Amino acid sequence: MEQTTHTPPHNDTLSADDTGAQPIRTNFMSDNVGPASPEILAAIAEANVGAAPAHGDDAWTARLEARVAEVFEADVKVFPVATGTAANGLALSALSPPWGAILCDESAHIFGRECGAPEFFTSGAKLCPIPSPDGRMQPDMLARTIADVQAGGRRLSRPAALSLSQATEWGTVYSLEQIVELTTLASDAGMTVHMDGARFGNALAHLGCSPADATWRAGVDILSLGATKSGALAAELVVMFDTHLAEDMERRIKRAGHLWSKQRFLSAQLLAWFENDLWLHNARQANEMAGRLARGLLRHPGATLPFETQANEVFAILPELLVQGLEAAGFVFLRRTAPPGVEGTLVRFVTGYDVQPADVDALLTALSGIE
Amino acid sequence: MEQTTHTPPHNDTLSADDTGAQPIRTNFMSDNVGPASPEILAAIAEANVGAAPAHGDDAWTARLEARVAEVFEADVKVFPVATGTAANGLALSALSPPWGAILCDESAHIFGRECGAPEFFTSGAKLCPIPSPDGRMQPDMLARTIADVQAGGRRLSRPAALSLSQATEWGTVYSLEQIVELTTLASDAGMTVHMDGARFGNALAHLGCSPADATWRAGVDILSLGATKSGALAAELVVMFDTHLAEDMERRIKRAGHLWSKQRFLSAQLLAWFENDLWLHNARQANEMAGRLARGLLRHPGATLPFETQANEVFAILPELLVQGLEAAGFVFLRRTAPPGVEGTLVRFVTGYDVQPADVDALLTALSGIE
Amino acid sequence: MEQTTHTPPHNDTLSADDTGAQPIRTNFMSDNVGPASPEILAAIAEANVGAAPAHGDDAWTARLEARVAEVFEADVKVFPVATGTAANGLALSALSPPWGAILCDESAHIFGRECGAPEFFTSGAKLCPIPSPDGRMQPDMLARTIADVQAGGRRLSRPAALSLSQATEWGTVYSLEQIVELTTLASDAGMTVHMDGARFGNALAHLGCSPADATWRAGVDILSLGATKSGALAAELVVMFDTHLAEDMERRIKRAGHLWSKQRFLSAQLLAWFENDLWLHNARQANEMAGRLARGLLRHPGATLPFETQANEVFAILPELLVQGLEAAGFVFLRRTAPPGVEGTLVRFVTGYDVQPADVDALLTALSGIE
Amino acid sequence: MEQTTHTPPHNDTLSADDTGAQPIRTNFMSDNVGPASPEILAAIAEANVGAAPAHGDDAWTARLEARVAEVFEADVKVFPVATGTAANGLALSALSPPWGAILCDESAHIFGRECGAPEFFTSGAKLCPIPSPDGRMQPDMLARTIADVQAGGRRLSRPAALSLSQATEWGTVYSLEQIVELTTLASDAGMTVHMDGARFGNALAHLGCSPADATWRAGVDILSLGATKSGALAAELVVMFDTHLAEDMERRIKRAGHLWSKQRFLSAQLLAWFENDLWLHNARQANEMAGRLARGLLRHPGATLPFETQANEVFAILPELLVQGLEAAGFVFLRRTAPPGVEGTLVRFVTGYDVQPADVDALLTALSGIE
Repeated sequence: MEQTTHTPPHNDTLSADDTGAQPIRTNFMSDNVGPASPEILAAIAEANVGAAPAHGDDAWTARLEARVAEVFEADVKVFPVATGTAANGLALSALSPPWGAILCDESAHIFGRECGAPEFFTSGAKLCPIPSPDGRMQPDMLARTIADVQAGGRRLSRPAALSLSQATEWGTVYSLEQIVELTTLASDAGMTVHMDGARFGNALAHLGCSPADATWRAGVDILSLGATKSGALAAELVVMFDTHLAEDMERRIKRAGHLWSKQRFLSAQLLAWFENDLWLHNARQANEMAGRLARGLLRHPGATLPFETQANEVFAILPELLVQGLEAAGFVFLRRTAPPGVEGTLVRFVTGYDVQPADVDALLTALSGIE
Repeated sequence: MEQTTHTPPHNDTLSADDTGAQPIRTNFMSDNVGPASPEILAAIAEANVGAAPAHGDDAWTARLEARVAEVFEADVKVFPVATGTAANGLALSALSPPWGAILCDESAHIFGRECGAPEFFTSGAKLCPIPSPDGRMQPDMLARTIADVQAGGRRLSRPAALSLSQATEWGTVYSLEQIVELTTLASDAGMTVHMDGARFGNALAHLGCSPADATWRAGVDILSLGATKSGALAAELVVMFDTHLAEDMERRIKRAGHLWSKQRFLSAQLLAWFENDLWLHNARQANEMAGRLARGLLRHPGATLPFETQANEVFAILPELLVQGLEAAGFVFLRRTAPPGVEGTLVRFVTGYDVQPADVDALLTALSGIE
Repeated sequence: MEQTTHTPPHNDTLSADDTGAQPIRTNFMSDNVGPASPEILAAIAEANVGAAPAHGDDAWTARLEARVAEVFEADVKVFPVATGTAANGLALSALSPPWGAILCDESAHIFGRECGAPEFFTSGAKLCPIPSPDGRMQPDMLARTIADVQAGGRRLSRPAALSLSQATEWGTVYSLEQIVELTTLASDAGMTVHMDGARFGNALAHLGCSPADATWRAGVDILSLGATKSGALAAELVVMFDTHLAEDMERRIKRAGHLWSKQRFLSAQLLAWFENDLWLHNARQANEMAGRLARGLLRHPGATLPFETQANEVFAILPELLVQGLEAAGFVFLRRTAPPGVEGTLVRFVTGYDVQPADVDALLTALSGIE
Repeated sequence: MEQTTHTPPHNDTLSADDTGAQPIRTNFMSDNVGPASPEILAAIAEANVGAAPAHGDDAWTARLEARVAEVFEADVKVFPVATGTAANGLALSALSPPWGAILCDESAHIFGRECGAPEFFTSGAKLCPIPSPDGRMQPDMLARTIADVQAGGRRLSRPAALSLSQATEWGTVYSLEQIVELTTLASDAGMTVHMDGARFGNALAHLGCSPADATWRAGVDILSLGATKSGALAAELVVMFDTHLAEDMERRIKRAGHLWSKQRFLSAQLLAWFENDLWLHNARQANEMAGRLARGLLRHPGATLPFETQANEVFAILPELLVQGLEAAGFVFLRRTAPPGVEGTLVRFVTGYDVQPADVDALLTALSGIE
């Protein structure tokens, strides 16, 4: 459903003028096109001293686990890896046997955007996509799917894990009540719960609650906590609230090639990300820019926003001519096919933590100027 | 969604009376609850003479390949195995790499009734279920799903195989035109085509066309041809019309534990099944009994038939009291949950090739007598 | 290492003379080239009556579990499947996680003769082959390998399962003391124990002990019990003495395509095999014929027997001219390359349960006549 | 076989004295305990500007492929990943089907030190370990193993790939002639060739030949080129000389979770590593320190060096008292069990690129002082 817009060959910025001002960021393709926060790079440099035990026996990793326990007010086991797909796949492999069913929204990254990684990491678990209006699974649909799978009996797939994306792939955020309702259904069916938190910081910034309230107190067993999209160079964290699930986790990670020998450089990134709430600071900035963009788009007569903008992704339906105009002006973003029966083109703008008001305004100005 | 009705402890038959008449078959749970055709057992006994090369180098298997080539009017490679799940899994593994997407109807046996076997055999291919009204995939839905998967680009799953169930899991049968339309969409997208023919004989009996017209002339690359449900003891056949797909197939079969050392006993069953068109004879009998049952149910004021009865499965929506009454009378069949908004209970009756008119009539009589 | 001898095109028998005597069986390739015992076929025919619940819920399977419990004097869970490779793969998958190491003799069928089936069924467990002089693992070599794997620590493979072949692939049989010594080492290291009993009956006939003594009392957790090589049409049995291992076993079997819908036909074979000790009768006959052949070969000046003949396989080193002479005379058997430094050709003769003294004597006579 | 020595709790250095001199590096556990080269960190910082296309479409990755083509004088496809286990697993998955056999030295990292990663990435290929005296496979042993596997025929594993470790796990280096002899055997058998070059730079520094001579000109199809052990933060490179193998490689990488969204930070490391021959400079320094250590150990009457020191690993057999003495003095290194029949303890010292003469001398001095 996705095709990338034309990518300018040499850079993704425009000079706003010739006066030496900060160049305008024109790339709204994703939050992973941006650089790392300076604090993250500094932490890597600080960790680059002398010898340190390899494979996670370093002091940084130990400190990281303690820090995450504080942040989430819980006994946890944490496993840093370099990519979100790895974090999700490893987490799911701890929750589902090969003959398990993993229930997720049909828009979930794990279903459609990871090239079969969950099937690979779980040695063949079955992903069951559940339709929803806006990326947030509906309890009645979940209940029905659980019942369907359970009815297969003891010789067919059993419902093993529920995976919820928070924020969702359509830029919406589950309320705590919605999370609890879904995780209760899962728990009553003997399932465990995974949260794909590639943009968990953005969701948390929207909710304004504590990390604990948004996860284990709401029934989440494992969180894939994404930092790369929000300031890290390459760092994601598997956070296990049910620490029994951690058994053999290091072997899972090693055999998948995800155990860094110099793991201090993963853990140092994450320590810096939690330091002074950099993670929340970055998430708030990204969310604000998305809100600014959404409000601007709503003022444009040709634009429709099919979903609420609650995190840092803005979806809009625009006349194809406007889309082409934006591309011609050098802006980069994702095209997706509009739902059946809808006129126009569905586009996605993602505002990274490094996007500035001037970047958003430049896009809105360019849009207004298209005739 | 399924739960079996109560199974009578000692047998699944009722004596119609005390006069020594043929007992009434009361088990409509599936076509795999029945015995093997006498001709099949006789063929096994005939093959049970002396030494024969193991693992498929026997004369029966060679004859089988030649016989299937005649029946399907094509150069083919054939691989007999003992179960339909194995035939499907092995066939799909020849069509999709681990990072491929296999598109199928959401009711497909490979999606919901094989405990993740396709994911296992393909080492993790992604199954994409497509909703349909009656088990027959709609071309526009297929086109849309293909486009969605293709849009992922060169780093995400690619659409690899289309799998069609003929007859479908809801007892309907694709017309040849419908098959061609779907396989053309698949072929245009660079996909190959699998047909799950667990009840292919029943579909063929309904269509009245040649085996060739119903398969490779309609764009099918591999057929899982099921004999177990229609008279065999345990025998299914992977039929490859694109013989290039057969490379390494024996290794796939061996490493999955599906290579019989005494393979003559698989091939002999299938030879007998084709002999004198036993396969079509059995299929017609089963279809006729389903038709008789469907017509009888339609005469009952409480029954609704949600799908056309085109093969040997009859689905009916009945008031729950009638369902319980039938169970109390000793009849065995499958309960499924009715679709949302529908009153009553959805039940499935399958008429095996060994079901007789008296069996059907006994069920209809019992139904009429429930108050 | 193996290449089959020339297979006579039309049959594998020779007429001993023109007087109408029983034809001579010339095929010593394997015990799986033979037919099924008449008692087995009769049992299948007897089971072929009326409807029976599918997928193992039938009465034959229930009786089989009870019967095996008697035979092995233990509470057991049993799972009939059609091939030995499936039985081994399924058993090992219940014993080793994907990151486990499975220790076996380097001659083990699971290592070199199953096309990677154990790796497939376990989703990637590592097989560690251990050299031995005659197919019987040496305790000091096992201890060393266990120590090596354990030293990898918590991020590398852990020793998960020991697999012992009884009888071995070189036609030898472990004594009970040898079994206990090996299983004790395994158990002390936290490993479970699998016995590949493709020729367990032959080993038991040699040992003369009870089935219980040869298995669970000697430390075996799961037995793959082979019947196909010794009279069945296609039937092997996974016998679990540690019944906790049976959890989810039916799902493992189903997703591998090994769950027969008409499972009564598997269980009926095995019930007949245990009836009147047919399994031991067949094994004794096969062993006796191997002994007769071994004694005859030892009388030949050109033959050397590198291993003790304790079951129904005879290995001999013969001058290449003799080997070719036997082949020219129509005999069929396996050639293997001789060990380094050994003159001559290593050949294997397997005596199936259906081999008669006249067959063995014909081979010996032919050998003596080669000039 | 390995157990780590006691790790000093707070650091791995000793102050040589109180005069403020450079602290002594006492950690000889592995070359992955060291920090990254300053040039590598600087390159990361330089790449941290503005937006860049994600997932490898960045300019750094394009430059990297061009640079590697120059260095290796060949058309290549390159795929940067974060770990050596991933590089090996992904490379092997492109060379062997699930039913293939991968032949390697019994000391190979892929066999015993990756927790089953090759089995995981290949979906179950069989690893066949071949014994050797010093980590360098012997041609006659390879030929014999190939013949053994080939003899299995078309229904068992086929020999798919040869994997050679250069430098080996015992610190030795294959000569070009040795490589060619082995790869010719493989090629003649229809196999492809992988080189595990976790320490390829060290081998190259020893050989003094061109990268092309050491790889594709000697018959290597894919190289896993390791940078992490020799200066990178976390960066390894799959280099494909047979570019046809690259098909679907990005999908393999993505589904394994090894595709970095901000891939510029992987490629930038490797660009810096090749810049001004930093890779060879680091390798030479490490090799020289190993040579210095080996020469020093040879002067000690209690030490025996079982293998030639040709790269940056030194193996020594030491009396257990000396080993404990070194540990008590704060030195960190790997203990391995000595071969059967050998008195003493086998230890491994690895000299990272950052080890200085004073570090080596401190160890030797400490050793001399143990009584």
